[in-house]
Amino acid sequence: MAEKASNANCTFRPHFKTHQSLEVARWIREKGVTGATVSSTQMAKYFLQDGWDDFTIAFPFYPGMTKDLKQLEKSSTFRLFIHSSENIDLLDQSLSNPYKVYIEIDAGYSRSGIFYEDTEKITSLIKHTKQSKLAEFHGFYIHDGRTYKAREKKEIEQIIAPSLKALRKLKSQFPNAKTSLGDTPSASVLSDFEGIDELTPGNFIFFDWMQANIGSCTSNNIAVSVQLPVAQIISNGNQAIVHGGAVHLSKDFITVNGNQTFGQLFVDSAETPEIFPNSYLSALSQEHGTVSGFNSYPNKEYITVYPIHSCLTANLFDRYVLTSGKVIEKRVLS
Amino acid sequence: MAEKASNANCTFRPHFKTHQSLEVARWIREKGVTGATVSSTQMAKYFLQDGWDDFTIAFPFYPGMTKDLKQLEKSSTFRLFIHSSENIDLLDQSLSNPYKVYIEIDAGYSRSGIFYEDTEKITSLIKHTKQSKLAEFHGFYIHDGRTYKAREKKEIEQIIAPSLKALRKLKSQFPNAKTSLGDTPSASVLSDFEGIDELTPGNFIFFDWMQANIGSCTSNNIAVSVQLPVAQIISNGNQAIVHGGAVHLSKDFITVNGNQTFGQLFVDSAETPEIFPNSYLSALSQEHGTVSGFNSYPNKEYITVYPIHSCLTANLFDRYVLTSGKVIEKRVLS
Repeated sequence: MAEKASNANCTFRPHFKTHQSLEVARWIREKGVTGATVSSTQMAKYFLQDGWDDFTIAFPFYPGMTKDLKQLEKSSTFRLFIHSSENIDLLDQSLSNPYKVYIEIDAGYSRSGIFYEDTEKITSLIKHTKQSKLAEFHGFYIHDGRTYKAREKKEIEQIIAPSLKALRKLKSQFPNAKTSLGDTPSASVLSDFEGIDELTPGNFIFFDWMQANIGSCTSNNIAVSVQLPVAQIISNGNQAIVHGGAVHLSKDFITVNGNQTFGQLFVDSAETPEIFPNSYLSALSQEHGTVSGFNSYPNKEYITVYPIHSCLTANLFDRYVLTSGKVIEKRVLS
Repeated sequence: MAEKASNANCTFRPHFKTHQSLEVARWIREKGVTGATVSSTQMAKYFLQDGWDDFTIAFPFYPGMTKDLKQLEKSSTFRLFIHSSENIDLLDQSLSNPYKVYIEIDAGYSRSGIFYEDTEKITSLIKHTKQSKLAEFHGFYIHDGRTYKAREKKEIEQIIAPSLKALRKLKSQFPNAKTSLGDTPSASVLSDFEGIDELTPGNFIFFDWMQANIGSCTSNNIAVSVQLPVAQIISNGNQAIVHGGAVHLSKDFITVNGNQTFGQLFVDSAETPEIFPNSYLSALSQEHGTVSGFNSYPNKEYITVYPIHSCLTANLFDRYVLTSGKVIEKRVLS
């Protein structure tokens, strides 16, 4: 991904919310990355301890963030998503050091941000940063999560087209503004990043079974899995109860061939992981997982599972075991 | 619940998976409770540190539990869910102290356990405990999670009827066996516990918006909530983006009046919490929550939310703030 960004003349500022690990962040640093995207001030503080000092807090600013920002500004710089003049005024009063402003753009996703055609509001906000003693307008940011609904590359391209168009239009209206694109499916699949200055995907670091189904990656690219002990084999061997529920995997699911799928079974022994397409987690309660199609799965003592949504699954664990056997720690909820 | 169990001549051995807090467990101890139900050996080890020494590990035994059980048996006794003679033999070789055996019964839920009419298998297992040097047959356990699908009291009664019938039948076949019933909806709603010796609900300690919709409780009974900062108000004030996503609330949802609901907004200021029925979390991504019907909600800076499934939501936090302001810690994932 670092290479892809570089070839496209984009800055690479990956999101760290998926791995939440100092060690993984070091691997990223080795690729020349110096700026990190995070989802909260708490997450920034976690990475600050390992020398990261240039953050994008990729969540709309709200006053409750101020206390942490006052701590963060002592030893780091940051970019904030600001959508109101009031918040710029508030930060002028609360902070001591300059910071950068992204205007988060809504190109139709309707989650957060300012609608890209609301030029009046955008212009007014930029004007307000010029009057501010600390805020410096940096550019426009889009995370278009609708690409997660795609089920093939072409669909990703179709879904992201309005966002690209919006960023390019803004770039032509505000030539000094930087443009930043966030979602993993687009960063994985697109080849033409004209008008985009920065890529900030996060999920790509592991990918997952959802991304494989979206078309962002192949199953070969999925770099994280969960091993779950088999506790009971039922239904003449065709179902298994495993110790792995919503508290381990999250309750995110995708529908594959009409089946709700909470995890995809595979075997990692071969050079290429072997997928057992009919063996999947078909139900989850808090601690229990139900495997359907267990008959065809070779290992009867534990299963290896590609998570549906690696961001949510990784969030439920405090460590990774590398293929070398080395254990690396990660941030847990706080 | 303790009183209800006592009135029904049932032992009360609540599940601790919902609160996962030593302090909350102390309140339970004050009600005379001495035995705890937990979902894993790790959870037992957590409560062991506060003097709990009599556990039900309410998950089908699998060999990976053995290492922890060897630690636990040094200072506690436990009951295990055993469904095979091989596991009884394995524990005879691995453990040093006697332990008790529940046979988990499947009355049609088809999650884990032995089908209640499989008398041959049940008899053979009990016989095997008699030959074992450590296993002592204790009784039958049912957690029938199908009651979570109910949407009124009568439905709970209808759904749980086969489980009650199964336990009562087993009681008549094996008069020395104890019978134990697990789910919160049944424990909350039933009045006739004839043939049942023990109640082990867990969720009742907090309840949640799902339980209120099931009919297990009223919204007045819900004892846990989450406060989320409002980050942006959109759609002419009728939607809000809050800092609260799947990593805070879990992705569990219920459908209320045709709407997917990930959390229910209320205001806690009055003696009786005021529900805003049209104000609810209608979408969640990793860190973002979208409030629908924000127009009618009075507080524009933060929202207070009843979680859909308190077990999963509490699992994502490391502390509770009591109404007194006191902060109490809880176990986090491990």
